Formats: sequence, structure tokens, C-alpha cells
Amino acid sequence: MKVEIIAVGTELLMGQVIDSNSATIAQELLSLGLGVYYRQVVGDNPERMFEAIQLAGGRSDLIILCGGIGPTQDDITKQMVAKYLNVDLIHDQEEIDKIKRYFEKSRRSMPQNNLRQALMFKGGVKLENPVGTAAGALYKTNNDQMFAVLPGPPMELKATLKQSLIPYLLQFVRKNEVIDSVYLNFVNIGESQVAEDIEDLINQQTNPSIAMYAKPERVQIRLTSNAKNHEEAEKLNEQLAKEIIKRLSKHFIGRGKEFDFAKEVVTLLKERSLTLSCAESLTGGLFASEIVSQSGASTVFKGGVVSYTPDIKEQLLNVSPQTIKEHSVYSQQVAIEMAKGAQEQLKTDVSVSFTGVAGPDDEKDHPVGEVHYAIAFKNEKAHTGCLHLGHRSRNMIRYLSVQRVLANLIELLRQR
Amino acid sequence: MKVEIIAVGTELLMGQVIDSNSATIAQELLSLGLGVYYRQVVGDNPERMFEAIQLAGGRSDLIILCGGIGPTQDDITKQMVAKYLNVDLIHDQEEIDKIKRYFEKSRRSMPQNNLRQALMFKGGVKLENPVGTAAGALYKTNNDQMFAVLPGPPMELKATLKQSLIPYLLQFVRKNEVIDSVYLNFVNIGESQVAEDIEDLINQQTNPSIAMYAKPERVQIRLTSNAKNHEEAEKLNEQLAKEIIKRLSKHFIGRGKEFDFAKEVVTLLKERSLTLSCAESLTGGLFASEIVSQSGASTVFKGGVVSYTPDIKEQLLNVSPQTIKEHSVYSQQVAIEMAKGAQEQLKTDVSVSFTGVAGPDDEKDHPVGEVHYAIAFKNEKAHTGCLHLGHRSRNMIRYLSVQRVLANLIELLRQR
Repeated sequence: MKVEIIAVGTELLMGQVIDSNSATIAQELLSLGLGVYYRQVVGDNPERMFEAIQLAGGRSDLIILCGGIGPTQDDITKQMVAKYLNVDLIHDQEEIDKIKRYFEKSRRSMPQNNLRQALMFKGGVKLENPVGTAAGALYKTNNDQMFAVLPGPPMELKATLKQSLIPYLLQFVRKNEVIDSVYLNFVNIGESQVAEDIEDLINQQTNPSIAMYAKPERVQIRLTSNAKNHEEAEKLNEQLAKEIIKRLSKHFIGRGKEFDFAKEVVTLLKERSLTLSCAESLTGGLFASEIVSQSGASTVFKGGVVSYTPDIKEQLLNVSPQTIKEHSVYSQQVAIEMAKGAQEQLKTDVSVSFTGVAGPDDEKDHPVGEVHYAIAFKNEKAHTGCLHLGHRSRNMIRYLSVQRVLANLIELLRQR
Repeated sequence: MKVEIIAVGTELLMGQVIDSNSATIAQELLSLGLGVYYRQVVGDNPERMFEAIQLAGGRSDLIILCGGIGPTQDDITKQMVAKYLNVDLIHDQEEIDKIKRYFEKSRRSMPQNNLRQALMFKGGVKLENPVGTAAGALYKTNNDQMFAVLPGPPMELKATLKQSLIPYLLQFVRKNEVIDSVYLNFVNIGESQVAEDIEDLINQQTNPSIAMYAKPERVQIRLTSNAKNHEEAEKLNEQLAKEIIKRLSKHFIGRGKEFDFAKEVVTLLKERSLTLSCAESLTGGLFASEIVSQSGASTVFKGGVVSYTPDIKEQLLNVSPQTIKEHSVYSQQVAIEMAKGAQEQLKTDVSVSFTGVAGPDDEKDHPVGEVHYAIAFKNEKAHTGCLHLGHRSRNMIRYLSVQRVLANLIELLRQR
């Protein structure tokens, strides 16, 4: 089944909004073994939207449009699909009632426009939207071609996709083929070096296929296998995964598409019953925030101090003014005292600290991107490191500082 | 000039990576008065990439492809464009030298693959990449149709676009027409209510056009005018902007596509010579990090305490155990003591605090999304607020808490 996604919205064409919906849809379909062959983005212009639908209708089996089904008059996606298919749009009474209830509950009067959201294809299928008032709609032609229309707001799209479209599609998915992927993550190595180290494997690839993604904090390799069932696909993927991990062992940090350094740190701390705190200067709360973004962080994370000025480092973390004077605030020595200070103040087993220059300007002898950090375990000499992240933006420097230190912390925790 | 963007990469089609490049390109071109009419996304499959180039070649004047010019063998964008145009690819000696120097400097040996990055269209124009080893390439046909190929990594794309492609395109841009946009931001109101409040204006729109974007923390309205020059476009935009702001005055927070609540707070604090600190529980450093993400934050922001557990609230912020016992940790009273505690500990003029339930689970009588905050000015009674952000994800609750409090802080600072 050839799938095509059409993301709708002038705001997408003009670049005002980044289209994340198409990626969400593609990933969900992939898990059903359905591959996306084509993607288009169109504005709210009726002629060009119709053209796009025509193009898709001529080459794809399942066409998913997202966006343009809201309450305003430039929302015309359902109308254009109906025109192409030559079917009528009719109001769905259940949806009208739902929209009315929503406005009653919020104690707001209902703009008449909102009734447009209750339109469905005559003879089609409603795709319920569990978190919003704009329901999706699907139409299946006599030739088994399908057109699905989903809401544009990402949360509503995800919910409608998972709870309505995917369950509907399951009945058509071939049950004798699966596509499974595994993801491997590597740190402290560049994309082209990875490519060279496994060049022979890349050249030989057929099944599994190998794909590589360079992200700021990691290189990710995806292995994808086609097979009759999950067991077989897993076997194919595993064989190649092992070989790649062997070759790049000192850079390998973990598996999983969404392998998250902060999540791994929280897991490792939990397993070892260790508590964590932090002292942050240039990262300014970003490390703490990354940890707290993980649900369950409260079992291991006690808190931290954002000491953005030298006097706060002295007052709240007991960093010695003498150390700052001698070594400057951007130094390994200050990083160590910050980490030790946080550990004592917050009474934790481990503490992490950051001090450095986020930019945009150099600080005297310290160039933008010079970052010192310390990782202190209770009653032990602190581990320290210095990063050189120059020529990046302020927030990329802050982000990378946090990610690199999380990666180092993972390594240290795994050794314990 | 009709512009079409083709984003290249199987990782985009499969949804592994979200395409932000097309948005970057569209926005830059818009500032030249060039509108994007079509967008496609294609994988690294040669046939379908060729099809996409053919389709674009048949309908657009300027076709910009991004991605697929890296060192690996599935990078075939330049090859496919060359095939469509029937021109040769040749190695550019300057680029070869640059790539070699890059590897010498990093003290790494150069994988042979990297020489692919030095390929250019014969008879075309090189688009220098100031931050990477994959240069872009452009070819202009005898019919004045242009094909430009840009690197895929977002930082390299931006740099190559701004420093090479845009300056090249400037010579072809019609100088007797401009397209200018203004952006207005509104808080504490929904998209459909805004649509209703200005429905008559939306119905009448011709020039300027009105577009609306609902984001989690705001509704943004964009007004776009076509005119002979910037003065005239500004006049058209301003007239309508004033009317819209008048109607929605109590929700209006500021102008600008990138209007950033944290940036506005830093600016207002600077103007008033006030210093800021914070005390965070559920937001866990996110407020501090938002402030520190602004360059120049150090002139107003001293730091903060992330007090993720009750004992840290007591130890570092002097919150009374009695208050926690009586009112629970999720209460206005605790929020006030946290803000006052931070203000005293960090000796600042203003302090902000957050305590609440980020989820995923309710905490006894306190549902997910219940957030208490306080904004305390020195020697004044604290301002407080309670947010109900239920049924959202943990990190959306944290994000919205920070943004809502920043919006409230903006309001309070403007009154001073």
C-alpha cells in the first residue's frame, strides 16, 4: 500500500510553522508496515490544494491529509477532497452536539463557524477526535483507495491518528509482512567517521537497511528489516547490530530511537539508589530541567542551585572567593567546589556542576564555548572535564554541555 | 517567481527527522518577496527523487532542494538534478582543499567519501557553505529556471542560504514589489474566539491578508501586505493592526513573529534596573533556563533554587514546615514563602516561584495540572495565581506554567 501525506496550511508553506505532523503520521504507519512514498505540503489555496489531491490520487493508495479542518473559512481540506471524490459533505449530529457541549462546559458562546467542524463525507467514516472539536473524516472509494483527513493541531492529530485512523487501517494491513527497526546511539564521534568505520556494511546492505542520522549530541544508526514476522526481523536486525556495536564499542551509549540521556541517568540512579543534585552557571537550570522532564525524577533528584553570578556561587554553594580570584570563575577548580557545595547543601550522593562561557562574547581569556564541569560522588575525588564547544549558538552550547555531561554521568554510573 | 522546495531524505519521509529546513528557506525567501508555491518531501530513492524534480521542473521557476549532499553513498541529490538537467558534475579544487584542511585541523584522516562533497554542476555556481564541508550548488538554465541544492544539516543550511544563495538571488528579485508582514500576539484567549471577534475583518480581508496561528501559550495573528514599497506596506498593515489590537486589547501582549516572553521580561527588568531570582519545584529549572537562554540575562538574573523536594524548600528557601503541613506543598502559601525565600537568599528585587503537580499522576487532592505560583517584589505583598492545566503532558504543563507566569510578570513589570 503506497501512502502519501499532504500537510495543509499556508503557515507551513510560508515557514511560519514547522510541519511535525507528517513525521508523526509516518512513524505510526511504519509500525504497521506501511511505508510513506510521497509527501507534499500545500497552502490554503483551493486550486493548488486540488492539484495536490489530484496528484496523490493518481499515484497513491492511502492519502492522508492533515490540517485545514478548523472553524475558520480558510479551512477547506474536507471540501477539496469531497470535490475531488465527487461526494457530498453532511453535518454529523453527534459532532454538532459534542461541539455545543464543549462550549457550554467552557462557559463560552459557540461561534457559528464551529459547526463546520462537524462536516463528514457522505458514505464515509468518521475519525473521532478524542481531544478536540474538529473530527477527522475518511472515505474509501470503490477501488479501495482511501482518503483520510486529520486535524492539524499536533495533539489532536496524534490522538485522532492513534485512536481512530490506525484501528481502522489495521483491517487492511497485510498480516504476512512486518517492518521492524532498531536504533543504536553513539557519542563523541562524527557521522563521516561512523560511515567510514562501517563502510563495507553500508555497501553490502540489503535487508536490514542501514540509515544514519547526525544529531548535535549523537550519531544514530537505524537498522530496518523486512520479514515474515517479528522474530525473524529481530534476528536479522540483531546480527547486524552486534557487529556495528563491536566496531564502535567505545562510542556506543545505548539503544532506542528515543534513547534519552536524562532518562537513562534517572534509571541508573534509581537502580543504584543514589540521589542527585546540581549546581549550574551557564546552563542556568537546563540540566535540572532535563532531569525533571522525566516522570519519576522525584525519587532520585532533590534539586539544585542556579548560581548565575559569582556571589551566588559563594553564598549558596560555599565556593571560595579565593578560588574564583586565582583560577577565574571559568575553571575546573570552581566547577569542583560548585559540585561539592551542591552535594553538601542538598545532601545527595552525586552532584554535577557547570561553569563556562555560553556567549555570544568571549570572556577575556576564555573563549565562547569553554565549559568546565565536575561530577562529584560523595566522599570521592570529583571527576572533571573541559568542553570546547566554540562557534555554536549560546543555546546550542548550553544544550550540548548538558548532553555531554549526562553521557559522561551515564558512563560513570554504569561502572558502579 | 514561483518557488518550490524539495526536502530530501528517507529519514524525513519515515518521520525520523522533522523537516525544519523548508520552513527556514520559505521564511528567508518571503523576506525577498518570493512566495513558496509548492513543497515536496522525497526519500533517497533515485526514481522518486527524479520524479519529484521533474514535477517541480514543469511548474516552478526556482527549485530549491535541501539534503542529500553529504559524504555517504545515499546522498544523491546533486546527481539527480544533474541527470534531469543533463549537465555534468565536476570536482571543485577549492572545495577539495577545504575538505582536506578540515580533516587535517581535526587531526583525523579524511574518508575518501568526503570528496563527493566537492562536486559542482559544470557551468553552474558554487554556493559556499561557511560552516561545513558540503558546499551547495546552483544551476541556471537558458530559460532562466534555477535549481539550487543546499546542505541538509540545519546550521549548514542556514549559513549557506544566508551567505550564498540569498545574495545570489537578490539580482533577480523584482524591485518594484514588497511583501511585508507584522505579527501580533495574544494570551489567555482561544483561536476560535479570536476568529469570532474579528470575523468581519477576516471576511473583508484582501490586502493585508490575515492569518492566525494557535500556539500552546498564545494566539498569533499575521498581517501581510503587498505594496510598491515598505512604507506603503507598513501603512496598510498598521491600520489593520491597530483595529485588531483595539478589539482584543486585554489579551494583547506584544508584537513580533518571534516575540519571546522571557526576552521581554529581561528587557523590562533591564529598563527598570531590577534583578530577578526564582524558586522552582515542578518546573525544575525551566524558568531559570528560559531566562538564561536570553543573551544578556546576566545583567538582571542572579540565579535560583530548584527545590524539588519538601526538605530542600525548607533548607534552602526557609519555607516553614508548618506551612507545608497545614496547606500542603501545592498551595499558594508555599508558593509565597518560596518566592520570598528566594528573594531573601539571592537578594533580588523580584522573585518568582512555582509549585504544583506536573503529573503523570494526581497527588491526593491535587489533580495533575494544578500549579500555584507567586511573583514577589521586594517589600511588597506577593502576587499569586493558580493555573489549571490538566489533561496535558507533564512537560507541556511545565512549559505552560513558565510561559503563563512570564506573561503575568510582563504585565506587572509594565505597570511599574
